[in-house]
Amino acid sequence: MMGLMQDRPLLISGLLDYAERYHGDAEIVSRTCEGTVLRGNYRMLADRARRMAQALQRLGVKAGDRVATLAWNTHRHMELYFAVSGLGAVLHTVNPRLFQDQIAYIVDHGGCNVLLFDISFADLVAGLRPRLPQVTTFVAMTDADHMPASVEGALCYDALVAAEDGRFAWPQFDERSASSLCYTSGTTGNPKGVLYTHRSTVLHSFVVCQADGLQLSSKDSTLLVVPLFHVNAWGVPYASAMCGAKLVLPGPAPDPKTLFDLAVAEGCTFSLGVPTVWLGWFKYLDETAGLDLAALKLNRVVIGGSAAPRYVIERFQKQGVFVIHAWGMSETSPLATVGNLLPRHAGLSPTEQVDVQVKQGRAIFGVELRIVDDQGNELPHDGTVAGDLQVRGPWVTAGYFRSEGGAVVGPDGWFSTGDVAKVFPDGFLQLTDRSKDVIKSGGEWISSIDLENAAMAHPAVQEAAVIGVAHPKWQERPLLLVVRKPGTDPRPEDILAALAERVAKWWLPDEVVFVEELPHTATGKLQKVKLREQFRNHVLPGA
Amino acid sequence: MMGLMQDRPLLISGLLDYAERYHGDAEIVSRTCEGTVLRGNYRMLADRARRMAQALQRLGVKAGDRVATLAWNTHRHMELYFAVSGLGAVLHTVNPRLFQDQIAYIVDHGGCNVLLFDISFADLVAGLRPRLPQVTTFVAMTDADHMPASVEGALCYDALVAAEDGRFAWPQFDERSASSLCYTSGTTGNPKGVLYTHRSTVLHSFVVCQADGLQLSSKDSTLLVVPLFHVNAWGVPYASAMCGAKLVLPGPAPDPKTLFDLAVAEGCTFSLGVPTVWLGWFKYLDETAGLDLAALKLNRVVIGGSAAPRYVIERFQKQGVFVIHAWGMSETSPLATVGNLLPRHAGLSPTEQVDVQVKQGRAIFGVELRIVDDQGNELPHDGTVAGDLQVRGPWVTAGYFRSEGGAVVGPDGWFSTGDVAKVFPDGFLQLTDRSKDVIKSGGEWISSIDLENAAMAHPAVQEAAVIGVAHPKWQERPLLLVVRKPGTDPRPEDILAALAERVAKWWLPDEVVFVEELPHTATGKLQKVKLREQFRNHVLPGA
Repeated sequence: MMGLMQDRPLLISGLLDYAERYHGDAEIVSRTCEGTVLRGNYRMLADRARRMAQALQRLGVKAGDRVATLAWNTHRHMELYFAVSGLGAVLHTVNPRLFQDQIAYIVDHGGCNVLLFDISFADLVAGLRPRLPQVTTFVAMTDADHMPASVEGALCYDALVAAEDGRFAWPQFDERSASSLCYTSGTTGNPKGVLYTHRSTVLHSFVVCQADGLQLSSKDSTLLVVPLFHVNAWGVPYASAMCGAKLVLPGPAPDPKTLFDLAVAEGCTFSLGVPTVWLGWFKYLDETAGLDLAALKLNRVVIGGSAAPRYVIERFQKQGVFVIHAWGMSETSPLATVGNLLPRHAGLSPTEQVDVQVKQGRAIFGVELRIVDDQGNELPHDGTVAGDLQVRGPWVTAGYFRSEGGAVVGPDGWFSTGDVAKVFPDGFLQLTDRSKDVIKSGGEWISSIDLENAAMAHPAVQEAAVIGVAHPKWQERPLLLVVRKPGTDPRPEDILAALAERVAKWWLPDEVVFVEELPHTATGKLQKVKLREQFRNHVLPGA
Repeated sequence: MMGLMQDRPLLISGLLDYAERYHGDAEIVSRTCEGTVLRGNYRMLADRARRMAQALQRLGVKAGDRVATLAWNTHRHMELYFAVSGLGAVLHTVNPRLFQDQIAYIVDHGGCNVLLFDISFADLVAGLRPRLPQVTTFVAMTDADHMPASVEGALCYDALVAAEDGRFAWPQFDERSASSLCYTSGTTGNPKGVLYTHRSTVLHSFVVCQADGLQLSSKDSTLLVVPLFHVNAWGVPYASAMCGAKLVLPGPAPDPKTLFDLAVAEGCTFSLGVPTVWLGWFKYLDETAGLDLAALKLNRVVIGGSAAPRYVIERFQKQGVFVIHAWGMSETSPLATVGNLLPRHAGLSPTEQVDVQVKQGRAIFGVELRIVDDQGNELPHDGTVAGDLQVRGPWVTAGYFRSEGGAVVGPDGWFSTGDVAKVFPDGFLQLTDRSKDVIKSGGEWISSIDLENAAMAHPAVQEAAVIGVAHPKWQERPLLLVVRKPGTDPRPEDILAALAERVAKWWLPDEVVFVEELPHTATGKLQKVKLREQFRNHVLPGA
């Protein structure tokens, strides 16, 4: 029997309508590519988003069309978040930090006719243009005074906005319609597109605003460090509209000084970013005399993207800032687990609290997760056994754009994340490796990440990578590759001795090889696939 | 273009699965009808709900069947919340405080074959039985030692649970399936059933857990005063499972002493109830010597059902408890507006904060609201003009069970609440009357509630009611009916003089009539329809 509740769709435009009506004065502060700081609010966002939607329609954009952006965190990019999706079109946020080949591939694979870009990327766009045959309209996200000369025929964003009257009612449609598209920056193969829906986006926003989620509320001022081109900026643009949180957009390539000054000036209480950002932040704090740390109002910082280092959690703790360690991926919108303390953790010492916080948190309602072995059998959540991490839920992908990668979800809906993890009995998740990087030795799994972390603790190790190399008896055994710190000359046995204090004996690498450098992706991840190729025929001692 | 997110349904069983896995140890404390206090948790709830689902299936309950309860807030009723809906059947919570005629009508209209009842209601059920021809199975919600003799052939709830093994996987189905049924206790006509869905229930739960909603979290211990038979206990049973909040169920007919003792003993931080409960609560506090108020850990209390009196808000404020004034109705699941303070209210004095809190709050995301005039034209949100309040959204009713009352929603989805309200520019709602009670005088509206509140301020007035009476010139004019306080003998002109200090001159009632008593519904609401009948041919002075 069907119930008798109204069948109103969950739409991104509903978030904007709500913000305009109930939080119209809540501020959106934008550091622009023109070098100014613009003080706007949700009323202005809503008005300009409607005008931009009208302009996009006039440019021929229809429901379902993909519209690409190459842009920083500014008010204009935020407007496009609502204008494009609100229209029923699909916002395709392209990461400008990728290699040009990848950018060209991603824009082209997305099938976009319209590309909007920040003026910082004008030369990039001009260079890419011959490789973007489908793009017929280029829009420079700026005003008439700052139009770049390099992209011939480009339209001016602010002129497009000014030409419309904003009398536009957002269309209503199926909440499972596509709303946005993000490509994963895989370490192997072509990037793959994750196609979000209005439903998944609104549901995900609820979690960001939950008291046991990221607690985003109208009382917050958010320093949005995570880029708008990085998995929907972790859902914050939408969730901010849902609750009317003040939003601070730090603009083009913000350095730690810019972020710090904005945080102080705008009374920021909340921020989000990858670990690298916060390493730079503390470096800046340490190196800069006369900073007024007491002027900072931050009370919590979300760290994701890669594991939050203990050091960063501790530093923030000392400043009264709680680090919410979260885990997710493009395929999970991205929030899947969130590391809040539970009531029973309240009495813990600061160090013990950090012990909890270094784990990746617990699944939020809506995301189911499990770990499985090689045969797909479910493994216990005992905090000891590690397995392939699988997730499912209404904001988890069912497949990639244009069926790239084939069927990625089993009949029961589980999506394999490609991560290896343990789950503790209380639900806390601890990632131990990427599935393809784990070393399978004699039927047991060895975590390459754990070994790398242990090696990094040696004072002479600048960077470390561990890969599995074929072994006649054990199937695979670990090989440790080390970049030495300049001016040091450790012996392999020194490093192995240091490791032996931190890992089980059978985990110890069979060999240590010193290298000059290690290969990385555009986003800074170790390219282990290259290393495995390079050492494919390497013979370990005793093998 | 459809997106590529997983199409997993939002189901009530998902809330329970989540609570069991991630908050299994979080407590559910139940004061039972057998006179004990049972300490359970979500793990036990999940286990017993699965067993009860098996038992219900064995009794022939199928998806879509309605299952009725006549029960207090205990662990067993909470189990049925999940067992019945989880199965795909419909939980029909009947208010045992209604008149017997209404109970018989509601159970019969619901078409229930199974009725589960607390032993406190055994005699009531035995008396009603001849009028419940469709009910073939009666289940006493108790253990073997407390089976009531009066309901012959009744099954024993705990025996049913014990006979099953709990190996039961919740079925998956369309999230728009009916989950529960509540009848409105209208002041006119037959009660009408609101048929909730799994989707509406889960979406509503998100709002209860939002930082800008009711902020329910795993850190809370909730004293659930609002009955489980009163509009899904305002959604708290479901939302508690979503976030793992501790739940304290105060059992049969709790008096203020019971509530106070439970609140202290269980460290309750959060509670919800109608104004009457809190008037009784403060009366108890005032009359009881030696209470340790410092032992109370309450930090916020939700008041709804009818307007929260200023006095109650102020009393709580003095104790450091924030009153969240909320408005909603059975037809809105019930949360529609929530009265949280905004950042700009932070600097207000306590009295000014109460000025904000006496309003009914602002619409939560998901609920759209507007006010309209007699012709359906939208009125401004200027805090001055009052109009008929209409709402729409995914947890607002689209119509009543068995099409009772006909089409209640217009083509654009607006549901007329039957309330008259003003909306202030900042979105705060202030209810001024029920639509059918408002007095339409010369094309303008006069609020009967405002007049009643003003009259109640006179020291000799025990109770007051204002109704519109036909008037040849003005269409309607107000008539004030007053029950005098014992031992007082005010003159009509004294009361009108007092009113004149509080309301516009043209609002002043044309006549004051003293009566011995005023008629009320079973739930304590003034029955103005009876008064209007009684005074239908009354001729006002000067008319």
